[in-house]
Amino acid sequence: MSERVYAGTLRDAHIEQSVLLKGWVQKRRDLGGLIFIDLRDKSGLVQVVFNPDISKEALETAEAVRTEYVVEIKGNVVKRDPSTVNPNMSTGTIEVLANELTIINKAKTPPFVIQDETEVSEDLRLKYRYMDLRRGPLQETFKLRHKTTQAVRNYLNNNDFLEMETPILTKSTPEGARDYLVPSRVHAGEFYALPQSPQLFKQLIMMGGFEKYYQIARCFRDEDLRADRQPEFTQIDIETSFMSSDDIMDMTEEMMNQVMKEVKNLDITLPLPRMPYDEAMARYGSDKPDTRFGMELTHVSEVLANSDFKVFKSAIESGGKVCLLNVKGQATNYSRKDIDKLTEFVKVYGAKGMAWLKAEGEDLKGPISKFLSEDEVKGIKETADVEDGDLLLFGSDKTSVVYDSLGALRLKLGRELNLIDNNLFNFLWVTDWPLLEYDEELGRYFAAHHPFTSPVEEDASLLETDPGNVRANAYDLVLNGYELGGGSIRIYKKEQQQQMFRVLGFTEEEANDQFGFLMEALEYGAPPHGGVALGLDRIIMLLAGRTNLRDTILFPKTASASDLLTEAPSPVSHTQLDELSIGLTEKATTEKE
Amino acid sequence: MSERVYAGTLRDAHIEQSVLLKGWVQKRRDLGGLIFIDLRDKSGLVQVVFNPDISKEALETAEAVRTEYVVEIKGNVVKRDPSTVNPNMSTGTIEVLANELTIINKAKTPPFVIQDETEVSEDLRLKYRYMDLRRGPLQETFKLRHKTTQAVRNYLNNNDFLEMETPILTKSTPEGARDYLVPSRVHAGEFYALPQSPQLFKQLIMMGGFEKYYQIARCFRDEDLRADRQPEFTQIDIETSFMSSDDIMDMTEEMMNQVMKEVKNLDITLPLPRMPYDEAMARYGSDKPDTRFGMELTHVSEVLANSDFKVFKSAIESGGKVCLLNVKGQATNYSRKDIDKLTEFVKVYGAKGMAWLKAEGEDLKGPISKFLSEDEVKGIKETADVEDGDLLLFGSDKTSVVYDSLGALRLKLGRELNLIDNNLFNFLWVTDWPLLEYDEELGRYFAAHHPFTSPVEEDASLLETDPGNVRANAYDLVLNGYELGGGSIRIYKKEQQQQMFRVLGFTEEEANDQFGFLMEALEYGAPPHGGVALGLDRIIMLLAGRTNLRDTILFPKTASASDLLTEAPSPVSHTQLDELSIGLTEKATTEKE
Repeated sequence: MSERVYAGTLRDAHIEQSVLLKGWVQKRRDLGGLIFIDLRDKSGLVQVVFNPDISKEALETAEAVRTEYVVEIKGNVVKRDPSTVNPNMSTGTIEVLANELTIINKAKTPPFVIQDETEVSEDLRLKYRYMDLRRGPLQETFKLRHKTTQAVRNYLNNNDFLEMETPILTKSTPEGARDYLVPSRVHAGEFYALPQSPQLFKQLIMMGGFEKYYQIARCFRDEDLRADRQPEFTQIDIETSFMSSDDIMDMTEEMMNQVMKEVKNLDITLPLPRMPYDEAMARYGSDKPDTRFGMELTHVSEVLANSDFKVFKSAIESGGKVCLLNVKGQATNYSRKDIDKLTEFVKVYGAKGMAWLKAEGEDLKGPISKFLSEDEVKGIKETADVEDGDLLLFGSDKTSVVYDSLGALRLKLGRELNLIDNNLFNFLWVTDWPLLEYDEELGRYFAAHHPFTSPVEEDASLLETDPGNVRANAYDLVLNGYELGGGSIRIYKKEQQQQMFRVLGFTEEEANDQFGFLMEALEYGAPPHGGVALGLDRIIMLLAGRTNLRDTILFPKTASASDLLTEAPSPVSHTQLDELSIGLTEKATTEKE
Repeated sequence: MSERVYAGTLRDAHIEQSVLLKGWVQKRRDLGGLIFIDLRDKSGLVQVVFNPDISKEALETAEAVRTEYVVEIKGNVVKRDPSTVNPNMSTGTIEVLANELTIINKAKTPPFVIQDETEVSEDLRLKYRYMDLRRGPLQETFKLRHKTTQAVRNYLNNNDFLEMETPILTKSTPEGARDYLVPSRVHAGEFYALPQSPQLFKQLIMMGGFEKYYQIARCFRDEDLRADRQPEFTQIDIETSFMSSDDIMDMTEEMMNQVMKEVKNLDITLPLPRMPYDEAMARYGSDKPDTRFGMELTHVSEVLANSDFKVFKSAIESGGKVCLLNVKGQATNYSRKDIDKLTEFVKVYGAKGMAWLKAEGEDLKGPISKFLSEDEVKGIKETADVEDGDLLLFGSDKTSVVYDSLGALRLKLGRELNLIDNNLFNFLWVTDWPLLEYDEELGRYFAAHHPFTSPVEEDASLLETDPGNVRANAYDLVLNGYELGGGSIRIYKKEQQQQMFRVLGFTEEEANDQFGFLMEALEYGAPPHGGVALGLDRIIMLLAGRTNLRDTILFPKTASASDLLTEAPSPVSHTQLDELSIGLTEKATTEKE
């Protein structure tokens, strides 16, 4: 009996055994001279009974016990009376009759009850994160996180990858998001940066001849946070030499298949669908389509090319598009007021308004119907497969606005109308991304992914002549409408890397200042290489069925990048600042006063 | 033949197969109209032959090829002529007759030759780290590092531990080493700190009810670097609830045994020796004894308590000690000059001089022999097991100086005299450490380990009355004279933690400011907990038989904490500093000019 057993593992097979338990008091009830305790440890719960006929002393100690006390219990496992069997508890057919009870540590009344569902504010839960973490769903999430990372490692270890660690104290490079900086004490006036990703190091590892690298890597971005962003996050980071983009996609989806098997006991069908970026945008209005439901965009620009409705006509004439969503059978369920609300929704995405029609019998009715010719009505009905009772919602503007607004509207309606099967895990690859994006305001191209991404081979010659139309040899993995991450084949020849920097508006000096070491490395036998990086936190969120990224991170930060538990960040001493040769500007000192 | 094969894997079994190879040109030789290339990839080397009778074109291309070019080769595996078999190469019985050769990427002449042994300066190798990493011993070291971390994970995963990630952006706490700081942009004037270890977070994880945690954790210390220190380093970080120090030591040594099995194919004898700190100091003059050889300290204070030799007498009278090392059979090998050099050596450790004697026949001869009585000579000989030809080296001073100087001298002589079997891996635990150390200069106690270490139970009541004599419930794991790491049972009651802070000279306010969240957590059902942390880099160094910690880190920093490859740290823009509400002090700006 000296070996401790885990509470949640006790079953009928343990009946008549004496056991030693350690854990937390989840709940205490007093009933008919007896005391009942639900004892919780990392494995789950078991009911413990204190009976004066068994041990008066244990019963007396039990009277002092409160919720979240840490206790040690010796007792015997007994069958429950059939009337008290609890089918909702895996230990519900037995209970432990206590002989001895020791209070190991006391607990003040918790600021909130430790139970699966809670209404308590997130701020309070984050301040007392160690108590929040005791709740079942969070315990399960971090077990799932553990299983997921081990499944990833199992796959990669078995496929000849080496796990390798890249530095956290690295060099600041202004291209990309904002860096977190670390002042150097030894080199006064100089700074390290925390890595936004191990991108350059993993490329250097390939130049180091390792060929297959991975890391569950911590990354940092000092950006304003949204619900699904954290200042530090974790990515599954992979790089390979001598592999094509197809090889890398094959490998990545096998890895994800192994994760789904080990973690969710599900098989996904391989190979995963691979969809060019242009197709994803045209069909779903999104570069990360949620393919768990249909309601794809219907393109009706051709049908409406000569429309009398000016909004349509001018959109098309100025190079834009008219598309519609056919919301099947919802004509009568959406009032004019409801549709007005949807119109407000699409305006957030740049739409100036939203035309609509309802199919009534053979007709299409609505404010714009009077502008439509018979042929146009026929054309719309055929193209969009319209039946009686369908609701048609139009987007007409420049292409990006049509896609963005209808893409978002499609998702909103999919959720509202319960079109999404939450048991599905729909993975797909989006390929053939644009390599560069033009920033109108700054008047220059930016790397859509990062400046080390290679163009697809047949577009390479256009890099300096028609950069906007060069496709990247890049691929993103999408799950249920979320981007899990992506990758690319990298540039491995110095001349092409120089060309890329020129296109991005770097002078030769700037390119050398920031990336001289990379360009030099490309001259000393750099192999062709490429890889992928997937956001682990988001994968966990989706696999655990959570909606908040913070639930997947053990000690997350708030939207203002604060840790409410330890109260970081915090002021530091003058001595510390002096040693680092930095001081606070007036702004900082004023705010502190 | 479309599948690439790895060069180093080719054997007789592949003879007559056609193969596709990709890799680097290690070496090219031209001989009798043929060209020979050693092709290297991550698996090793194979010899490729270009013969005009097979392919004139391939031979011509081969003429353009230089060292470190990246190439693709198609060819046939053939048996080597017996006279050219190379028994030093695992592929030495075969070679590949090339049909086709494609140059994938060129290489300039490398700044140093990529070969196992190199005389090149470390700075140059670090600047071109990606080429340094191609060398065989470094390739092997990082494979070993991978295997070691996976062996650690295998053990811990199988023993019910969860791998969990703690934050890198944390709160600065002045106790301990110097923190790396990260200015907050959102909270002007405030700073995050990079963790020196996940200590407090792993304790909070225990309070979160997880019971068994581990992490291969990156840690940071802004200290002046020595050969075996890096600003960022990695530790195997473990914490458990409800386990005793014996449980934790048992578990840790099983884990290390699994590592030794999987990585070195060696079994270590368990349980490992456990030696109290006082014994380690008394026998080896070290808290991390190298037990691969004897030559322990002999204590002769009793024998010499009334010595006429004043140095001995006064050392003993003022509470110190006289000890000696018996350097067996070395009397004639050490001249007076040699011994003078050893005397200079021990002075570094605070010794003021070093008495010595040589055993000649029945006599002990040397400058101090005239002070010794017959009984004393006899006593020394008996206590130290002296035989003809032995050299006796004395330390006499306060105890710490005797131990430090003779401990260091013992190691030096062990190496000089080849007493150490380099094939041995001698692990041991050092236990019962002092909990606190008194700093004479600052006039206060410091935590010997950290302020969360608990005292051994029977000493707990002395914490405020006799703090210097309280033993810690702590243990260090030692391998071949190196401290691999250590751990302790932590304080889990608020009252004791408060008491500890008082002993360390914290006011209540200071304690609450810095560690209020921990003290609060102790009040809400903290379980008894403890753990261990082992330095991964140092483990790798010892298992790989390296002497330089930088060889175990992929992209290490120099002694001035610089990355010579990327040139980090580096200056950043004014915009970046402004956003962080910090500026450079005069010192920094002056140094930059």
